[in-house]
Amino acid sequence: MSLLVVGSVAFDAIRTPYGNVDRILGGAATYFSLAASFFTDVRVVAVVGDDFTEKEERVLRDRNIDISGIVHESGKSFFWAGEYGENVNEAKTLDTQLGVFGNFNPQVPQQYRGTDYVFLANIDPVLQLNVRRQMNGARFVGGDTMNFWINGKAGDLAAMLATVDALLINDTEAKMLAKDASLPRAAQTILKMGPKALVIKHGEYGATVFFQDGAFGIGRHPFRAPTLPIEVVTDPTGAGESFAGGFMGYIASQNHLTRDVFKRAMFYGGVMGSFAVEAFGTERLQKLTREEIDGRYKTFLELTHIE
Amino acid sequence: MSLLVVGSVAFDAIRTPYGNVDRILGGAATYFSLAASFFTDVRVVAVVGDDFTEKEERVLRDRNIDISGIVHESGKSFFWAGEYGENVNEAKTLDTQLGVFGNFNPQVPQQYRGTDYVFLANIDPVLQLNVRRQMNGARFVGGDTMNFWINGKAGDLAAMLATVDALLINDTEAKMLAKDASLPRAAQTILKMGPKALVIKHGEYGATVFFQDGAFGIGRHPFRAPTLPIEVVTDPTGAGESFAGGFMGYIASQNHLTRDVFKRAMFYGGVMGSFAVEAFGTERLQKLTREEIDGRYKTFLELTHIE
Repeated sequence: MSLLVVGSVAFDAIRTPYGNVDRILGGAATYFSLAASFFTDVRVVAVVGDDFTEKEERVLRDRNIDISGIVHESGKSFFWAGEYGENVNEAKTLDTQLGVFGNFNPQVPQQYRGTDYVFLANIDPVLQLNVRRQMNGARFVGGDTMNFWINGKAGDLAAMLATVDALLINDTEAKMLAKDASLPRAAQTILKMGPKALVIKHGEYGATVFFQDGAFGIGRHPFRAPTLPIEVVTDPTGAGESFAGGFMGYIASQNHLTRDVFKRAMFYGGVMGSFAVEAFGTERLQKLTREEIDGRYKTFLELTHIE
Repeated sequence: MSLLVVGSVAFDAIRTPYGNVDRILGGAATYFSLAASFFTDVRVVAVVGDDFTEKEERVLRDRNIDISGIVHESGKSFFWAGEYGENVNEAKTLDTQLGVFGNFNPQVPQQYRGTDYVFLANIDPVLQLNVRRQMNGARFVGGDTMNFWINGKAGDLAAMLATVDALLINDTEAKMLAKDASLPRAAQTILKMGPKALVIKHGEYGATVFFQDGAFGIGRHPFRAPTLPIEVVTDPTGAGESFAGGFMGYIASQNHLTRDVFKRAMFYGGVMGSFAVEAFGTERLQKLTREEIDGRYKTFLELTHIE
């Protein structure tokens, strides 16, 4: 089934202990759609400026991603500059220039309206909610958010959370959202806010999915997926979005939601995140093959499973 | 096969967000031997003072632990007072009184010398090395250490590390020992120091075992075990030692070292750690049954395994 993502398509300048790049293709929707494209048909709603050229379009088109929902406006695309130190889980933002993204008010094109699977990447919860309302017939909606909205738009975020099937956030965001330093307790609090499934990403320790009692008819026991212990994390940018792309892409590729589908989606999420950090920007995702993905999926099984 | 542990038997005063206790039985060797006693015969070498009475002896004897190696000296037992805040992974030490433990120079009794499995709990690496030399015929030796020795006795610790089959430490200790902020890279550095297997405990995220290439004939791929997402961590004290007890106890209970034995040992370690934190001190471990342990082991499988 097709998967629609709404979010940022941007340019990034990134500095890590392994090097730096000046201006490469980035943005949550970019990482997400590249990762998801290995599992299902992907459609993107985003806004870009004049600097988004045929070269960037080709990166997405080469993965058969439908970019007819990307609106071109006069001006610059969203730009982010950040730096990572030894702690790969935390980026220091050096510069943010919203550009045309500052007036982003996503309208889902008519040809996308029937899409069954939807991911609301990290944007203003007011916009996420607008998109959610345009996609009333969706079967499964995932969403992301960040500290900025948790602190600044709590009311709008609450309204958005009540409408998603799965929320994907990291440890820090979960604790902040629930106002609770205990992660398992925070998870229960967040599930009461609306999402039937809550995926908490633990960076280098993997991720855990928690369920509302009886959600999707699959019970409430959590499930934990690993990541690969990677000695050289070249560029952590986009790891979370690539996780989300693998997770949502795999779910959309299956036609039914079972506990096992969720489990495998968690593994594929981890697999895609582990590839994303191996090179700067989306470089690794662009060159990936499905064979490599399935090979690493097997490594993840070996890493966690007892015969 | 029997398992010998050398370490502290002590009294603790503990304050956590869930309450406080004034003076309860604690110490690394206590937690370790209680946890291991569900898997194999356990023998303890330790020193205690006049305050260690029949009441404390009974806790260990009730689990069929051989305490003929516990030496009684005139004075007070080791005493530790600590406090945990919202971060259950870090204790704040409020008081330490070494008592008779200050002159601990463990001599393994003759009747223990043939023990095949040995665990050197967290004590001065000079003493660990002394014990190691007394147990030259051991088949498998595990060890623990802490920041205090990593910083203060690096040379002695290096000598000790060269003699153990498995080292069990936590994330912070691993990074400090290897002087590397990347955990997977730190693991490779530490393996070069001697231990054939390195178990790094990640607190609420579980634990990973790394192997020297070809160690025990089981290849070098790491293996990751979960912990239970526990909403109420009543008292984190002894979680690491209980993990070590479950890990070493299970290994000692098997008569051969295979990759699957290691995997299951990691799971049983996590299971024992998850029980230990459910009540203050050793209370939960004292009341545990093998049925409960195997039940939680199954929960751990469900938490991580794809059909």
